[in-house]
Amino acid sequence: MKAAQVVLRLLIEDKFGINRNIHCQVRQLSQCKMSKKALVFLAAGTEEMEFVIAADTLTRGGIAVTIAGLPDSSLVKCSRGVNIKPDIAVSEAKSRGPFDVLVLPGGLGGAKAMAESQEVGALLKEQEKSGRIIAAICAAPTALKAHGIAIGKNITSYPSMKDQMVEGGKYNYLDDKVVVDGNIITSKGPGTSFDFALTIVEKLVGKEKASEVAKGMLICY
Amino acid sequence: MKAAQVVLRLLIEDKFGINRNIHCQVRQLSQCKMSKKALVFLAAGTEEMEFVIAADTLTRGGIAVTIAGLPDSSLVKCSRGVNIKPDIAVSEAKSRGPFDVLVLPGGLGGAKAMAESQEVGALLKEQEKSGRIIAAICAAPTALKAHGIAIGKNITSYPSMKDQMVEGGKYNYLDDKVVVDGNIITSKGPGTSFDFALTIVEKLVGKEKASEVAKGMLICY
Repeated sequence: MKAAQVVLRLLIEDKFGINRNIHCQVRQLSQCKMSKKALVFLAAGTEEMEFVIAADTLTRGGIAVTIAGLPDSSLVKCSRGVNIKPDIAVSEAKSRGPFDVLVLPGGLGGAKAMAESQEVGALLKEQEKSGRIIAAICAAPTALKAHGIAIGKNITSYPSMKDQMVEGGKYNYLDDKVVVDGNIITSKGPGTSFDFALTIVEKLVGKEKASEVAKGMLICY
Repeated sequence: MKAAQVVLRLLIEDKFGINRNIHCQVRQLSQCKMSKKALVFLAAGTEEMEFVIAADTLTRGGIAVTIAGLPDSSLVKCSRGVNIKPDIAVSEAKSRGPFDVLVLPGGLGGAKAMAESQEVGALLKEQEKSGRIIAAICAAPTALKAHGIAIGKNITSYPSMKDQMVEGGKYNYLDDKVVVDGNIITSKGPGTSFDFALTIVEKLVGKEKASEVAKGMLICY
């Protein structure tokens, strides 16, 4: 057998692993394209509807959701008594990242815990610095303010949080259901949670996917 | 001291416990009036948004919510991966009742577990027999059918469950967001969950309370 024939045969049998490598890279590319990553915070007093609607809708949108508990990964009692188990402690979040979006659900107690958490602050600052998305709803925009996030941007919040957000002139407050300004997404409350979550899906995965997810949930979007 | 004076003094000092008894009964009456009771089922594969929106909205409506896990009270993995802890095992529900409403959230896995549970069946039959409310959403009306509940009534369900519900001619299927027929409340899916839950609040506590709860959640109802 001539040398050229030997090389040809080895190529056909993929002895150099070229096809295998290509397949592997295509799969990784495909997985990478599929697996946008979200971190959703959860603390005692978090509004369970705002939390669950975000986590569930993002998962339906093909986004890999990780739930980070404050102060740790033990069972969390939400604002109306539902007990939910986080996936990880907030201290583990940095090593699991980077995340394409950090989601802060509302609820007074939960938002206060997020506002007071140095770990949440560090994650938010790194997220903003790198231009990735931050999304906060209801009382949670107050946690953005506490950590000096989204300064000068258009934002919204639960109506009763408006004065607190407006004080100091750091934000341009709008009364829309969902406000998107660059990489900052804010929203008003439980009744705007579906729009809030679908806006995140649209921003990360596209309008078509967001519409498909909305249709499956029997929601006009 | 004359006997009449002694009796008068004892009465004033409430030595016979008459006032105490009256106060106690007034408090019990007031608590009784306040504390309508709901049992919400939760099983592996339950749709977490439908579950949480029901539990949270009813709690906001002043209804005492108990979460009954199937098969027991251990942590439940819902349809999109959120882990929720029930308050009690379904086997404990009978002794905690009676409940003013039994709520069955959807999600294929959860609805199947509810359809196959003899304990759920027994609770539903007793509930229907005594004229108390049964509420099911999304895939959960199939569990009503499995247990022979609401026969001949107007109902609805998640659209893809329609054929299964219609087969056998046991129900009059309607395409409304929420269908109320006597003590049976059914609804379609995640996007109709707020209307479903607020309808339960209205039925148990009144229109005014339902409107107040809706307003707090920034929902038109």
